[in-house]
Amino acid sequence: MTTSKERNRLGLLRPAAVATGLLAATLLTVPELRGAWGLPLQIALWCCLALFGVDFARSALRYAQGERSTAARVRLLVGALAVLPVPLALLLGAEASSAWLWTVLWLASLDRFASGLAMLLRVVRLELRPLTNVLILFVTVLFGVAVTLYLLERHDQPSAFGTLPQALWWAVVTLTTTGYGDEVPQTLLGRTVAGLTMLSGIAVIALWAGILATGFAAETRRQELLRTWDLIARVGLFRRLGPTVIAEIARHLRHWDVPSGAQVIRQGQPGDSMYFIAEGEVEVAVSPPVRLGQGAFFGEMALISGAPRAADVRATLPTTLLVLDIVDFRELCARLPELAQAIADESDRRRAENARAPS
Amino acid sequence: MTTSKERNRLGLLRPAAVATGLLAATLLTVPELRGAWGLPLQIALWCCLALFGVDFARSALRYAQGERSTAARVRLLVGALAVLPVPLALLLGAEASSAWLWTVLWLASLDRFASGLAMLLRVVRLELRPLTNVLILFVTVLFGVAVTLYLLERHDQPSAFGTLPQALWWAVVTLTTTGYGDEVPQTLLGRTVAGLTMLSGIAVIALWAGILATGFAAETRRQELLRTWDLIARVGLFRRLGPTVIAEIARHLRHWDVPSGAQVIRQGQPGDSMYFIAEGEVEVAVSPPVRLGQGAFFGEMALISGAPRAADVRATLPTTLLVLDIVDFRELCARLPELAQAIADESDRRRAENARAPS
Amino acid sequence: MTTSKERNRLGLLRPAAVATGLLAATLLTVPELRGAWGLPLQIALWCCLALFGVDFARSALRYAQGERSTAARVRLLVGALAVLPVPLALLLGAEASSAWLWTVLWLASLDRFASGLAMLLRVVRLELRPLTNVLILFVTVLFGVAVTLYLLERHDQPSAFGTLPQALWWAVVTLTTTGYGDEVPQTLLGRTVAGLTMLSGIAVIALWAGILATGFAAETRRQELLRTWDLIARVGLFRRLGPTVIAEIARHLRHWDVPSGAQVIRQGQPGDSMYFIAEGEVEVAVSPPVRLGQGAFFGEMALISGAPRAADVRATLPTTLLVLDIVDFRELCARLPELAQAIADESDRRRAENARAPS
Amino acid sequence: MTTSKERNRLGLLRPAAVATGLLAATLLTVPELRGAWGLPLQIALWCCLALFGVDFARSALRYAQGERSTAARVRLLVGALAVLPVPLALLLGAEASSAWLWTVLWLASLDRFASGLAMLLRVVRLELRPLTNVLILFVTVLFGVAVTLYLLERHDQPSAFGTLPQALWWAVVTLTTTGYGDEVPQTLLGRTVAGLTMLSGIAVIALWAGILATGFAAETRRQELLRTWDLIARVGLFRRLGPTVIAEIARHLRHWDVPSGAQVIRQGQPGDSMYFIAEGEVEVAVSPPVRLGQGAFFGEMALISGAPRAADVRATLPTTLLVLDIVDFRELCARLPELAQAIADESDRRRAENARAPS
Repeated sequence: MTTSKERNRLGLLRPAAVATGLLAATLLTVPELRGAWGLPLQIALWCCLALFGVDFARSALRYAQGERSTAARVRLLVGALAVLPVPLALLLGAEASSAWLWTVLWLASLDRFASGLAMLLRVVRLELRPLTNVLILFVTVLFGVAVTLYLLERHDQPSAFGTLPQALWWAVVTLTTTGYGDEVPQTLLGRTVAGLTMLSGIAVIALWAGILATGFAAETRRQELLRTWDLIARVGLFRRLGPTVIAEIARHLRHWDVPSGAQVIRQGQPGDSMYFIAEGEVEVAVSPPVRLGQGAFFGEMALISGAPRAADVRATLPTTLLVLDIVDFRELCARLPELAQAIADESDRRRAENARAPS
Repeated sequence: MTTSKERNRLGLLRPAAVATGLLAATLLTVPELRGAWGLPLQIALWCCLALFGVDFARSALRYAQGERSTAARVRLLVGALAVLPVPLALLLGAEASSAWLWTVLWLASLDRFASGLAMLLRVVRLELRPLTNVLILFVTVLFGVAVTLYLLERHDQPSAFGTLPQALWWAVVTLTTTGYGDEVPQTLLGRTVAGLTMLSGIAVIALWAGILATGFAAETRRQELLRTWDLIARVGLFRRLGPTVIAEIARHLRHWDVPSGAQVIRQGQPGDSMYFIAEGEVEVAVSPPVRLGQGAFFGEMALISGAPRAADVRATLPTTLLVLDIVDFRELCARLPELAQAIADESDRRRAENARAPS
Repeated sequence: MTTSKERNRLGLLRPAAVATGLLAATLLTVPELRGAWGLPLQIALWCCLALFGVDFARSALRYAQGERSTAARVRLLVGALAVLPVPLALLLGAEASSAWLWTVLWLASLDRFASGLAMLLRVVRLELRPLTNVLILFVTVLFGVAVTLYLLERHDQPSAFGTLPQALWWAVVTLTTTGYGDEVPQTLLGRTVAGLTMLSGIAVIALWAGILATGFAAETRRQELLRTWDLIARVGLFRRLGPTVIAEIARHLRHWDVPSGAQVIRQGQPGDSMYFIAEGEVEVAVSPPVRLGQGAFFGEMALISGAPRAADVRATLPTTLLVLDIVDFRELCARLPELAQAIADESDRRRAENARAPS
Repeated sequence: MTTSKERNRLGLLRPAAVATGLLAATLLTVPELRGAWGLPLQIALWCCLALFGVDFARSALRYAQGERSTAARVRLLVGALAVLPVPLALLLGAEASSAWLWTVLWLASLDRFASGLAMLLRVVRLELRPLTNVLILFVTVLFGVAVTLYLLERHDQPSAFGTLPQALWWAVVTLTTTGYGDEVPQTLLGRTVAGLTMLSGIAVIALWAGILATGFAAETRRQELLRTWDLIARVGLFRRLGPTVIAEIARHLRHWDVPSGAQVIRQGQPGDSMYFIAEGEVEVAVSPPVRLGQGAFFGEMALISGAPRAADVRATLPTTLLVLDIVDFRELCARLPELAQAIADESDRRRAENARAPS
């Protein structure tokens, strides 16, 4: 539990340091601000750097102690990239405002960055074939249009379309619908071609975006399922059902990491989900309070009766819950009578137990 | 029924007041119009404010009488935000045209705003993990590109790329494909980097948009299902089918709130849906007219025979219908013979009853 | 058959007239072209108008003869809108170049326009609830941002942000990512707000676009299914299978309207679909040629054996085919053994028949 | 194997030649670079052209030898388009920098271009109906808006909206959200119409993009399935399962072409997939090394036990694998006990065999 709390503190500290660093480095490039606020900004930056230095030293120590996994190597590299460039640049005589631009590398040390990048790379790898197909189509449209506009406009606008690189710049600005307006075709024919280009360009861009977005969604869902499968085995109720039923249920569960002390259910609110405890413990605020541990579930009453929540529920430890939405709960209970039965039995058993307990 | 009508009237009055208020406040900021039309515009605004004042007073009264639910508190807060800022600003000596800008808060008192915001927040909460992943990727690309362009362009265009905040402004304008064209890279290297940026930027934006759009669609469908499940139990025909069949049907029904007096079916039109009455009453314009109440269904004949609608159908009370599209009707009847049978039996029974009835 | 051919001719004539009319009316507004080419352009326009006049006269005649369906009324109205405005405008003394702008109404007489509009309206009606939710969110963001930027920028840029309507113009140009660049925030705070706005604006626009695109896709699929269900009953093979199997198959079939004489299968090409004849007739170019009529199927051999197409197939009448893709064919045959069996039996029977036939 | 290696080398050579050619031809249009680097650029271009010439000669030879398939004809045509235009243009007296612009046609000789274009054309053909519906809607909005803005703005801005073609240019630039800003409405009414246009324009563009993106995704999935079905029959394990099970599994498999010598599994990494060998051979780096040929599978142990990979696996021949993701593996095993059983049996059998083998 201590480790978890510590990780939480560090988890908040690092993003804060990254944000501070980026803001300070950004402001440092503005001459007026550099004059008036240069010193405090640099102090803030050095503090943040010190923090990353500590992190880096710890990774290096662990590596020296023999922890040579791929993750350890990546951590070491990311740490070095965060810590070393700024001092090196300053040593090599770079101006402070330029040297501190390397703080942009601090972003790479965020957990979110790593997981986002890992997902994106996986999607690109899996969808490489359609992505290259579309990319080649895009490049073809790009060059075809640029050459056409170069031929049509170079005599009328030598400063804007006088060379193919300029025409290519116009084409990429147009096909991505950015449309700066620094180069605009003027001839009737040029504009007709450009108009058709915009329509077709949008189509190709849509393919490109569509493949990535769909792949990313699939990958997100895959990771959720992977985590759910790992957690589902810890709930006794599910273990008693057959694997076919579990596979069916897993697709409808979401996991939710609740920090210790957070409120899960608020009395009097409408019930929209039930919860299974995959890890940790919660306390139901009835009198006397009831504690539920790993494998138990709660919140099913409001879904069955339609009445508002009967009591507050709060996590007493860092807890991981599996959440079943009311809509999925109803569908699953209708399609899998054994699940409905298992929940009802367990629910009755617990109520009976509570009733027997001395108040 | 009176309450329902009253709510309808109020439901139209409030959006009208919001629209009038926004329009008037907008026009009031134009000096020419303020001169010529200042008085009538302000009178209109005060009238709208009075309306919100009445609303607010009513909420406050109810709260004073002890209605302390979360919804009541939100209503009170939204009402206060709609009513108080303008008079306060005027009291504090603000100009009329500035004070009335607070009418923008009136939008928050629309039901649609509340439900739209609630859905969006729920989606953001559920998809927080992938959304932050993508946001961090976006911020990384943003800063990476801005720093690169700042280094490449600051000497050639000190007025446009002379500081990192300026380069960041260019980057955000470009990566969102807004493309004002107020800052445009000029160097060959700068343009090459910018061109690649646009392509990758579009990809990241597509991920961001895709997650939200998909989540919103799922949430919309969830709410529709939730409502359908609540209504489906009121239709006798469905109660007689097993829960598995109901779960299957529920996914294909849509609910439709029909105001009293509205026409549901027009004679002679092709039949594209059948209707189940979850609440209210309709009148079928045969002679003598037949009234159908809660739990009944109609419109199935045209789906079975393929003939056009045989008679007008009109709601005689505020009615909630469950609509089954012809495509889903055919698929469901093919897959669930018991549903087809139940509909046919009931249909026959009603026709026999009508035949027996004295004309 | 004659009617079908005639409809085809007319079907091509009308789009051609609309395109000609729009092009001529467009060119007529350019002073230089009006001088040099005014007469031929106007002659072309009058010819096209004459064509629409004939169409209109025919609709009017049918209406006078008593055909009073909704479709007839719509046709009459669309015809009147296409024919009357130009002469009326000319009579009322409008310039020719202005009067002919009404040709834009000719677009409404295209079948594609009608079906596209009908689909869009149906989608808007079905998705009204989420669409209004999102629209209100968008309007709120729009006004919120406009008011903020108006307050932040009006002193620095009175000509661009001096009134709220100007700020609203900036906001709508920015939130839709159009980004003309005619009004650009200059203050640091204004740009920060604008940058965040772009990101959130993209999200709201994505919701708006996503709802419409998803609804449109669902509606397209629904109409395809509706048509397929109507056609599937004409194929004997399917009638012999149970309704559950038909419902399953229908979801995988596409319909294809082939004009008389068109080639359906080319010898030697890889087989990627099989075809069921819902209407019309095809000729298989073996010797002697074999004609297949309504209810027959062909093209299954290449799917089963993997060999290239054995013979050309050509439609001898206007034919409507139901197309089953090779991927769906394999999946359906694996999941529905009775379908695989029925196809194999019929296939064998036909081959035996062909073998018995005198060559 | 030699052919495969040779194809690989050529497969990398051609894209390199296309990229070099495009880059050189682009740079050749810049007067400064043409002066300084004209000769080396042209030499590079002639070298690339020679390469395409060899390709073309080979195709022509094969054609002369009697290979007259459609593919051979296409290859001949594409080759001619790549090779002939530049020399012809130079012979006809064109400047070198203009003549070399024809290198843009080299893109057509890339395999990726062909497959991307084939997919796009197939999607357009299949979705022709909704695409034309939407296109007509778009054209209607385009002309309607252009005419309206032309009427509203032509007196205030004769240079920007003085003719309908100019207004159409503005409309297409705006509706595609490109927004150059070269023509911007100024009147209040013009801006109001323009603002509404942007919103509706986005909707129509979204429909257009949505249809293409969805169709492209479906087509990609279809081709993957087609390939998988062809490969699945080569794996003995699957042949033993019924066709219903195979159809189910096929939807979850992806194929992966691994070049000879590439590493498939790295020892110590977490297991996220298992692999079936559809073609080729791999070597598992245990001692003594085990070779697995066509029809075998590997990587299932880490999925079952959750332990990291036990050994490296490397392809010894160009190999095609069918990849089953861990998430799909679990779901399939839960739903299809016969699959789980078959994998377990085979796995046990192999382990026993390995144990018996002399070390």
